[in-house]
Amino acid sequence: MSSALLTDMYELTMLRAALAGGTAHRRAVFEVFARRLPAGRRYGVVAGTDRVLSAIETFRFGEPELEFLERVVDPPTLSFLADFRFSGDVYGYREGETYYPGSPIMVVEGTFAEAVVLETVVLSILNHDCAIASAASRMTQAAQGRPLIEMGSRRTHERAAVAAARAAYLCGFATTSNLQAGLEYGIPTAGTSAHAFTLLHDSEEAAFRAQIDALGASTTLLIDTYSVEEAVRTAVKLAGGDLGAVRIDSGDLGVVAIEVRRQLDSLGADRTRIVVTGDLDEHAIAALAAAPVDGYGVGTKLVTGSGAPTANLVYKLVDREDSTGTMKPVAKTSVGKPSKGGRKWAYRSLSDGIAAEEIVSTRPDDSLGRPLLAPLVRGGEIVGREPLDAARARHQESMRELPQIAHSLSPGDPAVPSIFS
Amino acid sequence: MSSALLTDMYELTMLRAALAGGTAHRRAVFEVFARRLPAGRRYGVVAGTDRVLSAIETFRFGEPELEFLERVVDPPTLSFLADFRFSGDVYGYREGETYYPGSPIMVVEGTFAEAVVLETVVLSILNHDCAIASAASRMTQAAQGRPLIEMGSRRTHERAAVAAARAAYLCGFATTSNLQAGLEYGIPTAGTSAHAFTLLHDSEEAAFRAQIDALGASTTLLIDTYSVEEAVRTAVKLAGGDLGAVRIDSGDLGVVAIEVRRQLDSLGADRTRIVVTGDLDEHAIAALAAAPVDGYGVGTKLVTGSGAPTANLVYKLVDREDSTGTMKPVAKTSVGKPSKGGRKWAYRSLSDGIAAEEIVSTRPDDSLGRPLLAPLVRGGEIVGREPLDAARARHQESMRELPQIAHSLSPGDPAVPSIFS
Repeated sequence: MSSALLTDMYELTMLRAALAGGTAHRRAVFEVFARRLPAGRRYGVVAGTDRVLSAIETFRFGEPELEFLERVVDPPTLSFLADFRFSGDVYGYREGETYYPGSPIMVVEGTFAEAVVLETVVLSILNHDCAIASAASRMTQAAQGRPLIEMGSRRTHERAAVAAARAAYLCGFATTSNLQAGLEYGIPTAGTSAHAFTLLHDSEEAAFRAQIDALGASTTLLIDTYSVEEAVRTAVKLAGGDLGAVRIDSGDLGVVAIEVRRQLDSLGADRTRIVVTGDLDEHAIAALAAAPVDGYGVGTKLVTGSGAPTANLVYKLVDREDSTGTMKPVAKTSVGKPSKGGRKWAYRSLSDGIAAEEIVSTRPDDSLGRPLLAPLVRGGEIVGREPLDAARARHQESMRELPQIAHSLSPGDPAVPSIFS
Repeated sequence: MSSALLTDMYELTMLRAALAGGTAHRRAVFEVFARRLPAGRRYGVVAGTDRVLSAIETFRFGEPELEFLERVVDPPTLSFLADFRFSGDVYGYREGETYYPGSPIMVVEGTFAEAVVLETVVLSILNHDCAIASAASRMTQAAQGRPLIEMGSRRTHERAAVAAARAAYLCGFATTSNLQAGLEYGIPTAGTSAHAFTLLHDSEEAAFRAQIDALGASTTLLIDTYSVEEAVRTAVKLAGGDLGAVRIDSGDLGVVAIEVRRQLDSLGADRTRIVVTGDLDEHAIAALAAAPVDGYGVGTKLVTGSGAPTANLVYKLVDREDSTGTMKPVAKTSVGKPSKGGRKWAYRSLSDGIAAEEIVSTRPDDSLGRPLLAPLVRGGEIVGREPLDAARARHQESMRELPQIAHSLSPGDPAVPSIFS
């Protein structure tokens, strides 16, 4: 499937004018960054890079795209697009890394023509995936090692759901309920039953029996369709101490979990786990830290970025050739939209292994700290792919590198200050 | 492309247990509704119905899906899925209609097996598209006839962007910047240039000249890269009174628009339009009603639902066959999650042409008002497709039917009360 029309029309209009005016082939550098983090967030998490590489690979204008574009651009532009193949370089933060205001999380170098047309698809992917990853990371930190199940597919666009499952897994979620994410990304999937299954049967007992017969006693029974207390009694009667888990989806989860734990223990089901679900976010998860909960299912708040559904990343021209062939840093001076011209390099300085500064420099200098930009595309060839599990491991490492304040859920400043040098 | 794995694993686990237990083929009715509207909203707008029909059509398990599912379900379930084809009936509100708490905006009837597996993909589509449409409708109402351009693609998932453009057009947006939406849905596209185009050139004047040369004087020039005042002077110098429009993307838009209007008029460009962009939502649009603005470009706030990124619709079993073959209404009694059992019909009663009540009844009775449920699928055959422009026209009509209070942007109760009979 072509990604070429996941594009704002103005990119092609600019391309057309630049081709006509002779500036289209000037060398140019675009940078992806966030002017600020969502209100009160301490850090952002990079995700989507690998999906961007796929989109660059499929950014080709075929028959249906070109036929449609006959109405949008002129013949010279159309013929440029027919042969389009990105031939430039891309550098970027690796997935799972944290980022801060001004971090150049992706740098696209090429001709103006080939770099400008990638703006929308690059931003769409990164804005979505970084927003979800940033929320997911706070949730896994709040869960303090208890497993999280991603189950938000129904509350977001059907394809965004697949990308959300990927971003959540990258940031430490244990499993997803989304089967397409299992197929596409190899993410472990989980899911047992909904209220509909209980309601389908003439009694809750009949429903539980059917589920246990089919899936074994280690299954997870949903216990809040009618009376929670009766459901627990029925569940243990049928499955005994081997019952895998029960799921609570309503009520005051902390209070209900304590009651259910007590009842399970008193019935001899002390190994049966308790999973809670129902509009959980990082704050609700943190509030349940002392409750007898063995796992969380998170839906709506994850896939909507827990209050920040987009990362608000922008794609800005920062450097380009002038009419004499010399590269010149550029930046607009629009009110309230600070931009800094020039191609950037980024480093994280550490003190005793803890991140101290995010250094954004207009010159490469590895002595400034751990380099953050890795080559992703070289001369049009994708060179930066990596397995999702590598990104997941990196995110874990990158959490260990953060100062303690980064894990505070209360609103505050970015945990690592951005220094421009 | 198959939609079959845009599905939560628990649907297939329930299917497996129901097949094993002999309840999978019981007749069942599922209903899509919202327990409440997003905080303070006066009405919701139905969108995505047509996309749901496409998803039902492509809900087929092919080789890759079945191979993946070998790890998830047992052989009898796998063989059921290999032959899967929805053979039931679907009714629903037409796109563009308003909805309220409890409105049964979609009703899916079939066997439990065939209806339960559609839950996630149906909800994903409707939750996303209704959220965007509901925000878009408030924006077009606030714009009072001035044209709105949808330009949010970069701030949301790359495929969600295409659906968002569709929902926005359905609710009265004039154009979209998203080219894929132009290709897939025939929505008129718009877009001229970004700051990058100005920055590419050695001077703003060179940039404007290149754009006017390529696109004609009727183009829209972006005037806030450097000094707005100088940009307007340069623009009119180059294009004269024929300049189509200028775009302002920063600063206090109302104030800047007044200054720019005055300057344009004084330079003889009194027919040149002013388009404003930059984090606009319905409130910002309403606040600009008295400003000399000729059009709005709306991005982030549209594609993120203006504070309500999901419609929070649920898909609930409300009626099903029992062991004697009799249909029985069902509803869970979970704390804080009100559901009403039984297959529903919905009518809107009118008083002097204005919507008075949203009547949700467990019996069909056309005397209650305008019937809201239309047949969409009959015995597995799609019968409810309609052109996007028909839905767009319906939305306009449905706005005329609303009581005045519905158009208040301040938080309040639903404009039309839901009556259950």
